Amino acid sequence: MRETLRPIDPKDVRFFSGQSHPILAEAIAGYLNIPLSSTHFTRFSNDNLYIQLGASVRGRIVFIVQSLTPPVSDHIIELLMMLDIARGAGAHEIHAIIPYFSYARSDKKDAPRISITARLIADLLQTAGATHLMTMTLHSPQVHGFFSIPTDPLTARHLFVRYLADQGVDRQRTVVVAPDVGRAKPAARFAAQLGVQVAAAYKDRISDKNVKFNEPLLERQVQGYTRAIIYDDEIATGTTVVELCSLLVKFGIRDVIAICTHGLFTEQALDNITVIPELSQIITTDTVPIPPEKQTGKLRILSVAPVFGEAILRNYNRQSIGDLFSFS
Amino acid sequence: MRETLRPIDPKDVRFFSGQSHPILAEAIAGYLNIPLSSTHFTRFSNDNLYIQLGASVRGRIVFIVQSLTPPVSDHIIELLMMLDIARGAGAHEIHAIIPYFSYARSDKKDAPRISITARLIADLLQTAGATHLMTMTLHSPQVHGFFSIPTDPLTARHLFVRYLADQGVDRQRTVVVAPDVGRAKPAARFAAQLGVQVAAAYKDRISDKNVKFNEPLLERQVQGYTRAIIYDDEIATGTTVVELCSLLVKFGIRDVIAICTHGLFTEQALDNITVIPELSQIITTDTVPIPPEKQTGKLRILSVAPVFGEAILRNYNRQSIGDLFSFS
Amino acid sequence: MRETLRPIDPKDVRFFSGQSHPILAEAIAGYLNIPLSSTHFTRFSNDNLYIQLGASVRGRIVFIVQSLTPPVSDHIIELLMMLDIARGAGAHEIHAIIPYFSYARSDKKDAPRISITARLIADLLQTAGATHLMTMTLHSPQVHGFFSIPTDPLTARHLFVRYLADQGVDRQRTVVVAPDVGRAKPAARFAAQLGVQVAAAYKDRISDKNVKFNEPLLERQVQGYTRAIIYDDEIATGTTVVELCSLLVKFGIRDVIAICTHGLFTEQALDNITVIPELSQIITTDTVPIPPEKQTGKLRILSVAPVFGEAILRNYNRQSIGDLFSFS
Amino acid sequence: MRETLRPIDPKDVRFFSGQSHPILAEAIAGYLNIPLSSTHFTRFSNDNLYIQLGASVRGRIVFIVQSLTPPVSDHIIELLMMLDIARGAGAHEIHAIIPYFSYARSDKKDAPRISITARLIADLLQTAGATHLMTMTLHSPQVHGFFSIPTDPLTARHLFVRYLADQGVDRQRTVVVAPDVGRAKPAARFAAQLGVQVAAAYKDRISDKNVKFNEPLLERQVQGYTRAIIYDDEIATGTTVVELCSLLVKFGIRDVIAICTHGLFTEQALDNITVIPELSQIITTDTVPIPPEKQTGKLRILSVAPVFGEAILRNYNRQSIGDLFSFS
Amino acid sequence: MRETLRPIDPKDVRFFSGQSHPILAEAIAGYLNIPLSSTHFTRFSNDNLYIQLGASVRGRIVFIVQSLTPPVSDHIIELLMMLDIARGAGAHEIHAIIPYFSYARSDKKDAPRISITARLIADLLQTAGATHLMTMTLHSPQVHGFFSIPTDPLTARHLFVRYLADQGVDRQRTVVVAPDVGRAKPAARFAAQLGVQVAAAYKDRISDKNVKFNEPLLERQVQGYTRAIIYDDEIATGTTVVELCSLLVKFGIRDVIAICTHGLFTEQALDNITVIPELSQIITTDTVPIPPEKQTGKLRILSVAPVFGEAILRNYNRQSIGDLFSFS
Amino acid sequence: MRETLRPIDPKDVRFFSGQSHPILAEAIAGYLNIPLSSTHFTRFSNDNLYIQLGASVRGRIVFIVQSLTPPVSDHIIELLMMLDIARGAGAHEIHAIIPYFSYARSDKKDAPRISITARLIADLLQTAGATHLMTMTLHSPQVHGFFSIPTDPLTARHLFVRYLADQGVDRQRTVVVAPDVGRAKPAARFAAQLGVQVAAAYKDRISDKNVKFNEPLLERQVQGYTRAIIYDDEIATGTTVVELCSLLVKFGIRDVIAICTHGLFTEQALDNITVIPELSQIITTDTVPIPPEKQTGKLRILSVAPVFGEAILRNYNRQSIGDLFSFS
Repeated sequence: MRETLRPIDPKDVRFFSGQSHPILAEAIAGYLNIPLSSTHFTRFSNDNLYIQLGASVRGRIVFIVQSLTPPVSDHIIELLMMLDIARGAGAHEIHAIIPYFSYARSDKKDAPRISITARLIADLLQTAGATHLMTMTLHSPQVHGFFSIPTDPLTARHLFVRYLADQGVDRQRTVVVAPDVGRAKPAARFAAQLGVQVAAAYKDRISDKNVKFNEPLLERQVQGYTRAIIYDDEIATGTTVVELCSLLVKFGIRDVIAICTHGLFTEQALDNITVIPELSQIITTDTVPIPPEKQTGKLRILSVAPVFGEAILRNYNRQSIGDLFSFS
Repeated sequence: MRETLRPIDPKDVRFFSGQSHPILAEAIAGYLNIPLSSTHFTRFSNDNLYIQLGASVRGRIVFIVQSLTPPVSDHIIELLMMLDIARGAGAHEIHAIIPYFSYARSDKKDAPRISITARLIADLLQTAGATHLMTMTLHSPQVHGFFSIPTDPLTARHLFVRYLADQGVDRQRTVVVAPDVGRAKPAARFAAQLGVQVAAAYKDRISDKNVKFNEPLLERQVQGYTRAIIYDDEIATGTTVVELCSLLVKFGIRDVIAICTHGLFTEQALDNITVIPELSQIITTDTVPIPPEKQTGKLRILSVAPVFGEAILRNYNRQSIGDLFSFS
Repeated sequence: MRETLRPIDPKDVRFFSGQSHPILAEAIAGYLNIPLSSTHFTRFSNDNLYIQLGASVRGRIVFIVQSLTPPVSDHIIELLMMLDIARGAGAHEIHAIIPYFSYARSDKKDAPRISITARLIADLLQTAGATHLMTMTLHSPQVHGFFSIPTDPLTARHLFVRYLADQGVDRQRTVVVAPDVGRAKPAARFAAQLGVQVAAAYKDRISDKNVKFNEPLLERQVQGYTRAIIYDDEIATGTTVVELCSLLVKFGIRDVIAICTHGLFTEQALDNITVIPELSQIITTDTVPIPPEKQTGKLRILSVAPVFGEAILRNYNRQSIGDLFSFS
Repeated sequence: MRETLRPIDPKDVRFFSGQSHPILAEAIAGYLNIPLSSTHFTRFSNDNLYIQLGASVRGRIVFIVQSLTPPVSDHIIELLMMLDIARGAGAHEIHAIIPYFSYARSDKKDAPRISITARLIADLLQTAGATHLMTMTLHSPQVHGFFSIPTDPLTARHLFVRYLADQGVDRQRTVVVAPDVGRAKPAARFAAQLGVQVAAAYKDRISDKNVKFNEPLLERQVQGYTRAIIYDDEIATGTTVVELCSLLVKFGIRDVIAICTHGLFTEQALDNITVIPELSQIITTDTVPIPPEKQTGKLRILSVAPVFGEAILRNYNRQSIGDLFSFS
Repeated sequence: MRETLRPIDPKDVRFFSGQSHPILAEAIAGYLNIPLSSTHFTRFSNDNLYIQLGASVRGRIVFIVQSLTPPVSDHIIELLMMLDIARGAGAHEIHAIIPYFSYARSDKKDAPRISITARLIADLLQTAGATHLMTMTLHSPQVHGFFSIPTDPLTARHLFVRYLADQGVDRQRTVVVAPDVGRAKPAARFAAQLGVQVAAAYKDRISDKNVKFNEPLLERQVQGYTRAIIYDDEIATGTTVVELCSLLVKFGIRDVIAICTHGLFTEQALDNITVIPELSQIITTDTVPIPPEKQTGKLRILSVAPVFGEAILRNYNRQSIGDLFSFS
Repeated sequence: MRETLRPIDPKDVRFFSGQSHPILAEAIAGYLNIPLSSTHFTRFSNDNLYIQLGASVRGRIVFIVQSLTPPVSDHIIELLMMLDIARGAGAHEIHAIIPYFSYARSDKKDAPRISITARLIADLLQTAGATHLMTMTLHSPQVHGFFSIPTDPLTARHLFVRYLADQGVDRQRTVVVAPDVGRAKPAARFAAQLGVQVAAAYKDRISDKNVKFNEPLLERQVQGYTRAIIYDDEIATGTTVVELCSLLVKFGIRDVIAICTHGLFTEQALDNITVIPELSQIITTDTVPIPPEKQTGKLRILSVAPVFGEAILRNYNRQSIGDLFSFS
């Protein structure tokens, strides 16, 4: 039985947003029924950032919402400065809310003399003053271990399951497809929750924008199915989805749904995906803002504000939030 | 063109072994043509460990070899104490050589209120004084990012490839099988190097000792092949191998080779695997010591001493060792 | 005048026990009238520990009780993992309650290239997340200074004094004997509280299990007394007590009581001590669990649960606990 | 008498450049007669940076040259990643060479809830792995104290003095003018070295781009002089120089030279300054790259490569470099 | 509109004073209506300090007031020990209240191989356990950035402005004079608040006790005024004031007021200043205690106790204290 | 067989002395045949210390000799500043040579709310930049564990033994007396090396300057002997020695020698001891400077310069120095 949660006392907290995604920050604050405090952002003529928090943080629980969307470097420096301000001004707790942690993808050394940047950023956030972190759908679950401060890796999976369940899923004819075998585990978890079978493409990355699939192995796995749900953490250029759709169709799939938590949709991504006739829906969340002019008829955006809001509320109430986690 | 490497000057270094695997330590020291210094180990009557390094380390480059084999806790504390001694006695550099880093498997939080113990151990090693670390075949490549000190994740893959290539591989009829989709990436890398196809089982872990495979998905992937190479990082009880073999045989495989870097082979593991008629070879390395009485006729043990020795030698010569890494 | 202490609100705290001494943990929790939360312990087949705390710790004051009893290494790793879990899961405060801190005996470098392991363990506990520590009867008071976090070194001396005072002490004929001059200070403090004279044996440690006393010096100090109270911090094999008793009897003592805070009593220790005819009582505490089958008629076990309970309660009430300390 | 300096052995060092100012990096490397190693920079489609150092750094002395020019955030993240790579790959020493440290200007809290970003960046550089830092003409000398690692604050003053001395300075009629009283100290040091008088404008900053001077106070200080040398650390939009020139002319100055170490010259700055008839020269350095198309006839660029080169060379030779410092 | 502040609950806090300035500590405690707890200070015969705090600090908010007055080293060690005691005894927060932070003057490296001691002391305070710091009128605002813990740099400027405003200021004939151009910024801020003009002397420091002014430049700035207010952070020997007065009188000033926050007044300072006929008032604060026998008729001492008291009270109430800062 | 030691290359090192004991620093430098570099010490009029090292330390091995003699606080701050300078100026290694570490006596908490100052000072030394420490005759061997950096606790015991052995010791009639049972262990080690019996006084400290001995227990231990050697780490006021001598004479001792490593001899200590007719010699070392005018005919000062010199030389040669340690 769930305990009743005490609403957040606005006097205890200060809620700020970086410039990356103020709309989501507003939505989370709205869920919690607390005001979003203003922040003043400007830039000196030498391109230095100048930031001033608009409300006293002394002794308060401070939340700073910032997605690492492009321009990523600016948004990181902005976040680090906001954390630093809160610490220097005597905040009691400093929670970094990072709905989209872009560098989670740089999580290993698969070439000599490169940076495991996800770990670096984790260390920088701590240096700047973060005492707790909330994020969503990390590229790999091990990234959690890069953080030295308590970290809550939330998931949007439940949102997708609920949304599809409401539509009804044809369990016999549907297969969930991980666009890369490295994402097979979360795809399998999603498929199990939906009650359908899973498959995984083996992707050889030629470059950041060019990939090549192991076709025979994919064909073996999807043959006999007619509906596919591509399930990924992030879609940027959309190349993978487009390529994968074409193969799936070649192997007999007649209806495709593409799902991703982080909808970057750079350049012509949405157009390129939308134009595929067999693709009926693109389901994503609002961890990354998508301008109205980019939104197409096939796009569905589920808000993660209630997930972050609920996590914050329970944390404030010292309740477990494990069932909002990826593993749950 | 490879540069000539200067041999290690024995006056510069001190090479020690914990109690976990002195034979491997001897072999690495032998490869480097330097002596293994003695260490005195004892235990007080209250079960406290007491360790004394047998040679002065002041201003020297110190290497301490310790695999995290059972009893794991004792071997960790032993290693931490040896690192602490070296630091307190003024060593110049302290290299922890951990051929088998058992806790690499505890690399994520897939249940609430558990420990990402691989990260914890990484932090403890640094606290105790390690300034550099070498290890082999981490369960996931992200574990590399848990370490704050320079870390070299070596691989035994080249040893396996060379060994099998010497035997000859029937490329049309052979498939490499990852016993879990989480291990599909390294299996694919291994398969590519061998020039054969890859497949991955989807394992649902019921408990530490009980697993259940997604049979239809496995069947789709391996049908048509007659030879399988199971490729894993570690075999402990052998349950997974036994179970997987039985399915592979059921799906048409007539010859199985099992490969793992870390051959724990607890309890009756080797007997249980050896007894499978279709299994022709078990190939492993000596990161974990295997007592002669456990060794069976089907077991091949390839030594990693040259890999660690070469890595140490190149590091001493300030040369890159990237081609000994997992990603290479 | 003592202030009234507010009982602990069970919603504020979480109380856990490692596997070393759950009975004592239960007793302390009982004193505080709060529940002991469950913890799940298991071991993977590669001997890795796996631990899951059984109750949410987010924002709570967490207590973890663990004595460093054999197998010491396992109990240390277990404790470090539990601390790490609490920290990673967002506990507000993390108190390590270590009734028996075995490595306190490794508190100095009396040989080259050994570890001051007590300091090492202190650092490891902090690395793993402990924010406060309570322990009892450290081998030397300086060990307190090894800890960077607030540490409360409690004493069981008052328990022993009260127990003996209830029996009545013949002050003229009784002498307190420190089995080693390094323990003379606490013995003198104990003797002063009892109102009797003190003496100290000079022990030359031949090995961990073999000691030799300076007989003439001991004889000079105890001659004329007929009752002796051997007062030590810890008894493990009992060799010292047996040897010392035999000398004391030779020098005229006719009745001996042996007291120690930490009753390890390894192997045949209790049998070997009990069999001494002149020894009438062995008084110890429950910082180390003593299985019922080892307990003999001469053994008295005084519980330290009220001491730890009282210290925790006062700490919760922000009251001084100095009068529970060794120096008081 | 100056000791002879041993040239740098190219085998000992690795010299890299970020993307901010490769020409200056080349020039410094050229001064030292060592090669500039290549670095691979790219950007993932989600805007994440990806960097690979082009030469092994294991055990080497690594230099990374990066000016914090626009886009500043990208150049900071780039630098942090390069430091992180060097550390993770086992570099022996890691020197961050930052000719233009833009955030030095954010050196105090002159409004509530802002960041002393210069200190933040100093901490981030250390977190990322820098072990030593060289920079030039910090906005205030106290910024030196923000760094926890050894830091060498070099000066370009000697370059300017030598350049002007070669032209000849009319000491009776010339006054050095600090455009803000906060820069009066370095202006006075420069004036003393030139042998002329100094003056300081009192600037009230209305906004980043709008300033207002205390005119009577300026007039009192410059009246009677006919030549002025405006001496500043950095010129960005040029507004200050333009405004100040106009006042100086009004107060009787007929010839103006503008000097700054860091020539940002954003937007139309150079055009706006050049167009002033009484302004005869703009003297700056190459800490910030100035594209040829922006360079005007009145602009003189003095290279700081010999200053950084000399400092690096002396540091390599363990010689003092104090006479290259601001205070010298 | 100012919120009502809740008075400090004496049970929450412990307020201590070092030996430097107990009278000010009493005054601040008095402002807050809380008791000053006793502290026992003594010195062992080997000159080691021995300090015992006189009230339990467990779980409390602890304030320790100590000005860094002569003997400065003793007062620093005393403060560090008091911080260490509070931390070791489990204080919840530890606020170092340092009205006079003498080493703020050692804020830069203006000679080779000297210490930026202000940064060193900042680090030592953190090492010893301070979690927050309050101080007043730092020599330069950048010193704020030396602290890694939240720091509040208060100002006494408002006290001086209010005091002079009550007397009435002749705005046409009065000029504020900074005795060194490095102090021109705060002098300008003070002058602006008073509504008068500002000037700055250019001081060449020959030695700690001997200075030489740039006379022509000073004359240009002050000519025409008849009243001067010398405005400095600290007066020690008074040499600067005496010298400057003599010049000002020479240049036409007929009435001088000397103001400083930190009135060290070593040796004959007060006598030497007082004896100047044109000097009518010396206005300072009580950040440094001035013994009654040193006080002369021209001296006015304004208490900073209300400033520190107000800052502490607002901090306790989680209110902003920015308007008590130097920049406000 | 001892290896030949390479003499120190003066180009590698810089040797400095604080103001506490330049004569000893000279002697150590002399032993090593390297020059003592000059250091400039002065004091600002506000009592702030100002220190400038007189030789470049960049990339060098730096030694700083400072005994913590009165005025202790000044000497600590001086040492911390010198360490800080060396670190900030890029020294390669920084060795703090502290012949007399006065605060070693503050090594435990034997009263509530006091500081374990020895640990605090250890932490401060590390914060300021020390990378290695050498000291002599710590009050208790556990203090070694307070340091996080490599620390060499040297002993003067061998000097005393050799000196007395040269005189000849009457083994049957001589007893070594520890003036406090807490010093019995080192006294026993000394006695064993001399081949004589040991005894220990039980001292109740009434105050820093007043002590009371347990007379009967002392009498028991020394009766029958006629010569006593009082063996202590430090003599300050000499009260203990005077008091103890009087008791020893009362119990039959006719000839007393007093030995201490650290001869503070404050106030009239030397006079008070010298005047005792039965006391024939006071043997000490030069860890603390003793002005010639204080030296009496009974005083023998053995220099520790060769001990420190030898330790430094061996450390430079990467040789073990364990046989110079207290435990050897």
